[in-house]
Amino acid sequence: MQYMYTQFPKDFLFGFSMSSFQFEMGIPGSEDTASDWWVWTHSHENITAELVSGDLPENGPGYWNLYSIDHTIADRLGMNAARLCVEWSRIFPKPTTEVKVDYEIRDNAVVHVDVREVHLKKLDELANKAAVEHYREIFCDWKKRGKILILNLYHWPLPLWLHDPLRARASGLKEGPLGWLEKRTVIEFVKYVAYVVWKFDDLVDMWSTMNEPNALYMMGYVFVKRGFPPGVLSLDAARKAMLNLIDAHARAYDVIKELSKKPVGIIYAFTWVEPLKEEDKEAAESAKLDYMYRFIDAITKGYIDGVRRDDLRNHLDWLGVNYYTRLVVTRSKDLLLWRPVKNYGFHCNPNSLSIDGRPASDFGWEVYPEGLKYLLLELKHRYGVPMIVTENGIADKLDILRPRYIVSHLAQVIEAIKKGADVRGYLHWSLIDNYEWAQGFKMRFGLCYVDYETKKRYLRPSALVFREIATSKSIPEDFEYMKEPIKLREFRIDVD
Amino acid sequence: MQYMYTQFPKDFLFGFSMSSFQFEMGIPGSEDTASDWWVWTHSHENITAELVSGDLPENGPGYWNLYSIDHTIADRLGMNAARLCVEWSRIFPKPTTEVKVDYEIRDNAVVHVDVREVHLKKLDELANKAAVEHYREIFCDWKKRGKILILNLYHWPLPLWLHDPLRARASGLKEGPLGWLEKRTVIEFVKYVAYVVWKFDDLVDMWSTMNEPNALYMMGYVFVKRGFPPGVLSLDAARKAMLNLIDAHARAYDVIKELSKKPVGIIYAFTWVEPLKEEDKEAAESAKLDYMYRFIDAITKGYIDGVRRDDLRNHLDWLGVNYYTRLVVTRSKDLLLWRPVKNYGFHCNPNSLSIDGRPASDFGWEVYPEGLKYLLLELKHRYGVPMIVTENGIADKLDILRPRYIVSHLAQVIEAIKKGADVRGYLHWSLIDNYEWAQGFKMRFGLCYVDYETKKRYLRPSALVFREIATSKSIPEDFEYMKEPIKLREFRIDVD
Amino acid sequence: MQYMYTQFPKDFLFGFSMSSFQFEMGIPGSEDTASDWWVWTHSHENITAELVSGDLPENGPGYWNLYSIDHTIADRLGMNAARLCVEWSRIFPKPTTEVKVDYEIRDNAVVHVDVREVHLKKLDELANKAAVEHYREIFCDWKKRGKILILNLYHWPLPLWLHDPLRARASGLKEGPLGWLEKRTVIEFVKYVAYVVWKFDDLVDMWSTMNEPNALYMMGYVFVKRGFPPGVLSLDAARKAMLNLIDAHARAYDVIKELSKKPVGIIYAFTWVEPLKEEDKEAAESAKLDYMYRFIDAITKGYIDGVRRDDLRNHLDWLGVNYYTRLVVTRSKDLLLWRPVKNYGFHCNPNSLSIDGRPASDFGWEVYPEGLKYLLLELKHRYGVPMIVTENGIADKLDILRPRYIVSHLAQVIEAIKKGADVRGYLHWSLIDNYEWAQGFKMRFGLCYVDYETKKRYLRPSALVFREIATSKSIPEDFEYMKEPIKLREFRIDVD
Amino acid sequence: MQYMYTQFPKDFLFGFSMSSFQFEMGIPGSEDTASDWWVWTHSHENITAELVSGDLPENGPGYWNLYSIDHTIADRLGMNAARLCVEWSRIFPKPTTEVKVDYEIRDNAVVHVDVREVHLKKLDELANKAAVEHYREIFCDWKKRGKILILNLYHWPLPLWLHDPLRARASGLKEGPLGWLEKRTVIEFVKYVAYVVWKFDDLVDMWSTMNEPNALYMMGYVFVKRGFPPGVLSLDAARKAMLNLIDAHARAYDVIKELSKKPVGIIYAFTWVEPLKEEDKEAAESAKLDYMYRFIDAITKGYIDGVRRDDLRNHLDWLGVNYYTRLVVTRSKDLLLWRPVKNYGFHCNPNSLSIDGRPASDFGWEVYPEGLKYLLLELKHRYGVPMIVTENGIADKLDILRPRYIVSHLAQVIEAIKKGADVRGYLHWSLIDNYEWAQGFKMRFGLCYVDYETKKRYLRPSALVFREIATSKSIPEDFEYMKEPIKLREFRIDVD
Repeated sequence: MQYMYTQFPKDFLFGFSMSSFQFEMGIPGSEDTASDWWVWTHSHENITAELVSGDLPENGPGYWNLYSIDHTIADRLGMNAARLCVEWSRIFPKPTTEVKVDYEIRDNAVVHVDVREVHLKKLDELANKAAVEHYREIFCDWKKRGKILILNLYHWPLPLWLHDPLRARASGLKEGPLGWLEKRTVIEFVKYVAYVVWKFDDLVDMWSTMNEPNALYMMGYVFVKRGFPPGVLSLDAARKAMLNLIDAHARAYDVIKELSKKPVGIIYAFTWVEPLKEEDKEAAESAKLDYMYRFIDAITKGYIDGVRRDDLRNHLDWLGVNYYTRLVVTRSKDLLLWRPVKNYGFHCNPNSLSIDGRPASDFGWEVYPEGLKYLLLELKHRYGVPMIVTENGIADKLDILRPRYIVSHLAQVIEAIKKGADVRGYLHWSLIDNYEWAQGFKMRFGLCYVDYETKKRYLRPSALVFREIATSKSIPEDFEYMKEPIKLREFRIDVD
Repeated sequence: MQYMYTQFPKDFLFGFSMSSFQFEMGIPGSEDTASDWWVWTHSHENITAELVSGDLPENGPGYWNLYSIDHTIADRLGMNAARLCVEWSRIFPKPTTEVKVDYEIRDNAVVHVDVREVHLKKLDELANKAAVEHYREIFCDWKKRGKILILNLYHWPLPLWLHDPLRARASGLKEGPLGWLEKRTVIEFVKYVAYVVWKFDDLVDMWSTMNEPNALYMMGYVFVKRGFPPGVLSLDAARKAMLNLIDAHARAYDVIKELSKKPVGIIYAFTWVEPLKEEDKEAAESAKLDYMYRFIDAITKGYIDGVRRDDLRNHLDWLGVNYYTRLVVTRSKDLLLWRPVKNYGFHCNPNSLSIDGRPASDFGWEVYPEGLKYLLLELKHRYGVPMIVTENGIADKLDILRPRYIVSHLAQVIEAIKKGADVRGYLHWSLIDNYEWAQGFKMRFGLCYVDYETKKRYLRPSALVFREIATSKSIPEDFEYMKEPIKLREFRIDVD
Repeated sequence: MQYMYTQFPKDFLFGFSMSSFQFEMGIPGSEDTASDWWVWTHSHENITAELVSGDLPENGPGYWNLYSIDHTIADRLGMNAARLCVEWSRIFPKPTTEVKVDYEIRDNAVVHVDVREVHLKKLDELANKAAVEHYREIFCDWKKRGKILILNLYHWPLPLWLHDPLRARASGLKEGPLGWLEKRTVIEFVKYVAYVVWKFDDLVDMWSTMNEPNALYMMGYVFVKRGFPPGVLSLDAARKAMLNLIDAHARAYDVIKELSKKPVGIIYAFTWVEPLKEEDKEAAESAKLDYMYRFIDAITKGYIDGVRRDDLRNHLDWLGVNYYTRLVVTRSKDLLLWRPVKNYGFHCNPNSLSIDGRPASDFGWEVYPEGLKYLLLELKHRYGVPMIVTENGIADKLDILRPRYIVSHLAQVIEAIKKGADVRGYLHWSLIDNYEWAQGFKMRFGLCYVDYETKKRYLRPSALVFREIATSKSIPEDFEYMKEPIKLREFRIDVD
Repeated sequence: MQYMYTQFPKDFLFGFSMSSFQFEMGIPGSEDTASDWWVWTHSHENITAELVSGDLPENGPGYWNLYSIDHTIADRLGMNAARLCVEWSRIFPKPTTEVKVDYEIRDNAVVHVDVREVHLKKLDELANKAAVEHYREIFCDWKKRGKILILNLYHWPLPLWLHDPLRARASGLKEGPLGWLEKRTVIEFVKYVAYVVWKFDDLVDMWSTMNEPNALYMMGYVFVKRGFPPGVLSLDAARKAMLNLIDAHARAYDVIKELSKKPVGIIYAFTWVEPLKEEDKEAAESAKLDYMYRFIDAITKGYIDGVRRDDLRNHLDWLGVNYYTRLVVTRSKDLLLWRPVKNYGFHCNPNSLSIDGRPASDFGWEVYPEGLKYLLLELKHRYGVPMIVTENGIADKLDILRPRYIVSHLAQVIEAIKKGADVRGYLHWSLIDNYEWAQGFKMRFGLCYVDYETKKRYLRPSALVFREIATSKSIPEDFEYMKEPIKLREFRIDVD
């Protein structure tokens, strides 16, 4: 019976994802000034160089204070789950180094970190109690509505005492603290994770160690034009950061497992990689490895580029899949064996058409829903763990493409489930407009429009579409015509 | 208290408008082949000449059979009213001339038509009973849901026995039947009206004699490129048709009043006329008169171009206001003292921007919500009768502009009410996609998308927006950000 | 040796084409008010109905007075030939019917017209001597520069005494004079032709009986939206006019041959017809016949739709090929077996891209140079007579596409010559901007820009490109990169 | 007499500008691998990070070998002058530090450098003689055609022994050689300049010490996203480099004056700065100072930010004015008191329209010819030295905007001359397409199109326009209609 296929599983999660830095600030008093991203976005040099937008996070949507309003909206939209976030620098604005824990570094890898209750208590003394308390209030407000809480422990900003991005850049990474280039960041991370789990495990349904580590080290050390800290071009540094983040995940996983019975996953920036032509297939495989699989292979299969790492194997209970668009690649003779092809996937002009006639968002990201199905099925075959679509959405201020974006991507999720992918939920990025890192407030991903002056939230039409789907746990027949991706002949729309 | 202003009156009507020819056909068996428009849209010569699209009305949405589905959708969208339509050629596919009634023609005007019960009974023998019965079923289906029914008696097609458009054209209007160029069409119209009122008054809440007579004679005899029958360019004929339509309304009004206690109105194609520059003000006044006020003045004030016509005065209980966009004019030395300015109002390129940066629809009609408020207030001052917005909507296949179109136009209605305009309802054009006359199926005005192959209806996102407003009888705070009209810098979107 | 191919034959003609109505008027005193097109373009009804632009021919470029300036420009641009025109209504503003000539009508066809010297002398008494003299001055001015003169005898306007388009339309073609629907127009045409040849044969190198008869009857009687007189939709009338125009050509050919030794041709509106898909091939063949070959077959092979007409056979010494773009067709179940496909050839939006990514002109005509080669080769195989490209050009106000348009089309001409086509020259449409019939002054086809206020001519960059080619009788190596047609991804440009 | 104004002075220079790195390479054997820019454009990391295009300078137009062809084209286009360039790293691929000269550093400024004949002879031993000889051949080829040669001594690349950009970046400017951040670069520059003047003064008509030092230090140390070496964000470094470049110019001026009687100037990147609103006027003044006047004031008036520097005063015989578009600024609370406004001047989207409706180039630079006049007049009032427009042109692959760009900018030059500006010439950027630094080959500025595969040059239509102007030393009446800047309503054109 065909209709069945538009039905989601009964316990399917519909919700939203958010992060701390992009959402919390906005109401005076909510500023968190203790992170590298705070310093980075306020750097006059960065602003002058147009590396960052000049928009400031303290003018953001203000979730720190307005969380209850947002939770009410989410509830009204039929959401039963949220992926929320804790900001490390809020919990530990000052160093935790004095809390000495045992750890083992072998072959340049952190293979063990031992955080015990005694450490947790010491950490508790160092922690910003007001922040801890405030987070509890936020989480309780969500949980008391009977919702699922997925708590992500790390979404990019580092405490300044672990990463001074301006100094790192000014010194060519010679002077620190250097963040993820240093082993000690791994150790401190594990302490932080242990502490948060110790504090909040009663409220949490699922844990995620971190969000998109791949974006973090690629933007920070390779694609420096994108304005991520520390913005120092070094492929070596990128790899070093990656290795430390792998260790960080694995050791965080270990420590959570000691403290909690909840499943522990990671949220990762995926895409669907396609070769431009037949002869680019090898390049595409290479791109997949570089972009996605090297990291996830390590924490599941226990190998990094052929080197066995038993301390990493099977460190993943669930996988958070962030998907926005595809990546079309061609072969290259440069350092990497592949390079992206313009006018496909992430590499389109804003509000233009891709070569295939697919519309691209305000960000220049092609709408390519099929990729999500292909990806989910490939991930199923490669890893076999339960998955949640933890991010999916579109920068579309005027809500032109979003209604169809939501329906067509969810239709692909159903297709993937039908073909055996174990997908447990869909968390839209995002409920409300947010601070888009170096891009500032221009890119608007919200189901709700935020007036940054008044902090008021308004529903976009797509929010109503989402609500129909979430409340019926299906793609209503009414919306089936939006399941198919569209091809256009002309597309440009631009607000002043 | 500012919030009040976004509240509509408690008994405000929210609904949709439709016509017979554009909606009824679609399911085999529902064809009505007895009208001028049927012949016109099937003329091979017209199709070859691209005067008509080649799309055929018998492939339409099929309301004749699927009305109950549509009524259910309307109900789900919170609608409490509909303006429906009866097709003359369905009721009387054959001549009614043999039913002799008394009438008086004075100074070339039909000043009286006398239709009595005896005539009605004779008409009943001539009428297509199956059609009468079927209409009753349709109306009952709507009324049994507890809804308001506004019944419009005439929406453009004429029975072939009153108008043969191909012959009229081929003869240069020398050979007929010539439709509204003939007095007898007025007489037959009054019979038809009387009969319909006699048959359906029990189900009807408000009557409208006709829809947009101005569009009818302007398209048919002046703007012949638009592909309306009979497509013969003659300003004299246009005026003659106008005068007959005025008489037809007035005599229909008289006869309805004898048979019914329901208010009788007319539905008219309005716009908001603006001068391009200060020196075009006189041209704008002239355009208002030509386009709108000459006709409505006649049936309210009883004057046509200064000539007193007591038999026309005060023949309007309510006014149906159709508004889509504005008309910007400049002075002209041609026959008319004004001409429209390109790239404003109705005269934009499809999916382009107007000179003011306002987006234009698939039809090339600028989105200009302010005009609706200005118009309603001007109509209030000029006529003082209760008004209903009987058509307002946008050809927007992809539903890009419609959500904001709805909210911003309804916000202007509220503003007008606030300033004293007696507006009783808002009927969207339309509930579902429809056959757009010479344009065929390309222009899609529906809150619901119609798949013409399967006849399935699908909700567009704007339908959800409409529902929120109609069910709350307010513009929810959630939508207030869409009240303001938008200005864009670039806009083009086109499906293949 | 590849380079040879870019070389034109030594005696190849490079020049421009013009017509009387579109170029002559502009300076007070030059008005010719005695034609159907004068009346048509001044009709207030036509202007109000937007059938014509409202631009008036008396505000045109003013070649009647400024011819010497234009000849000088043409000379500076390396042109050695021009196709000029005589306006019937200027020579005979009053009827010539009183000059009785013998003629024979058989099977409804004019098979013979006998114009003798005695008639010519009588015609001389009726002729507007000032006009005759003025044309002589114009032609002498051109010839004294040592140039080739191709004189076209008829380019669309008819004397009012032969065609009253408003009356024809108002009567549905019942009342005349009805122009090419009447046999007598054929007879009068032959007299006119004989007279002009008698008067000017000393100055003329090649004769053309008429320009684009196919456009004339298709626009006048089928595509009535395009605003050509009399604008009455009638496929029968179209066919009748076609048959009379065929006779008119043949009888004019006969009479010229008696008076002159110069080659006699016709100038025809060609295109390159392509099927959309394999299954549309038959439709394409049908379109070719309807659009082009029925007429030319008649005057060469002596058959019309299978009916033998010996009086028509071999009535063509040379063929004037007007080519602007292609026509892509698909099969149709309407009267014609084919219909044009949107977004190809003539049927693109202004300044858009065709489905193949080819840019389209201000007129919405796709740039498709290959079609010219294909066409010339097909014409060679079908007719075998010498050919001249008598019109080729582009409405491109800003001269964005014209440089490459010229080079790429001329490159195709060379290719065709290389493959055996006997092409003797290339006459650009046109030297200067001109009055584009119902479109008025908006469509600008000139190598030179005309300021209609001051009547000044300015060179567009493409004029310089043309000069380089014409003076070198080759496509200089410098320009070879412009030989290839371009494909674009985005194209829109629009002046206010 | 109005016509006079379109006439240029009799001895006005019409020519082209080029640089070494962007034009010379292309034919195997012509590679210069000894510069920072060579290393920079080949860095795999830079390519991966998309800081540079991946296009390589060794695939350039090949002027080093094909100069004679280019000189012939320039001659055919009526050019009587060229600004050519010598590449430091070609002349001295190895250090010249061992040639010890006296110099004085006072208050951290190089106030004197003493290069004597003995040093020149030693430098001659170190110089790459083949390169010196080859440059002589190039310059002789130009001079033998009777042309003016303006020789620019420095156009951005530094010898690797003076600047290792990758090391500079990797170390956060801690490890060198650090190029213009070091005083010794000033000293070595003066030696190099002295040597080149000593070698070529017989062939040179005018000297320029350097090209656009402002672009160099702003791109290298502030706008690091633009991909200039060393790409290290540091406002301090930017200022330090500026101060050293000021000294370098002044000391170079001194040493040229000792060796040559030719006028010595500098070529500078100017723009026309406009405030967005009245209240931004102060910001605009500030921008002018930062962007342009601080540097030129120093070498003319002898002041830097109020500090007197007598050793700099009156060190300018002529001023090379590079102008492409304007800069519209608004006030800012950041480090600089101003910031550019999007959609004006340099800050438009490629092939879009500016807010004023002016078209923008492939580079996104608005066409704003008026700015050139305003600038020349402001420079005249501020400095009073003779000027040459040393760069003006447009990235316009399809030559859509360039014809009008040339005419309208030259019309503004005439206007400026008329109002008293002492402008001696106009050198177009550029004769042929070239390597556009980090952008690679995509941006095409040539009057001639270069096929980089075959190295063939083809004339663009604008080349013909330029020729008409240059050969007539006037804007021919034929072109006057192109003098006015255009405003468009829509503009997008994009090749795949």
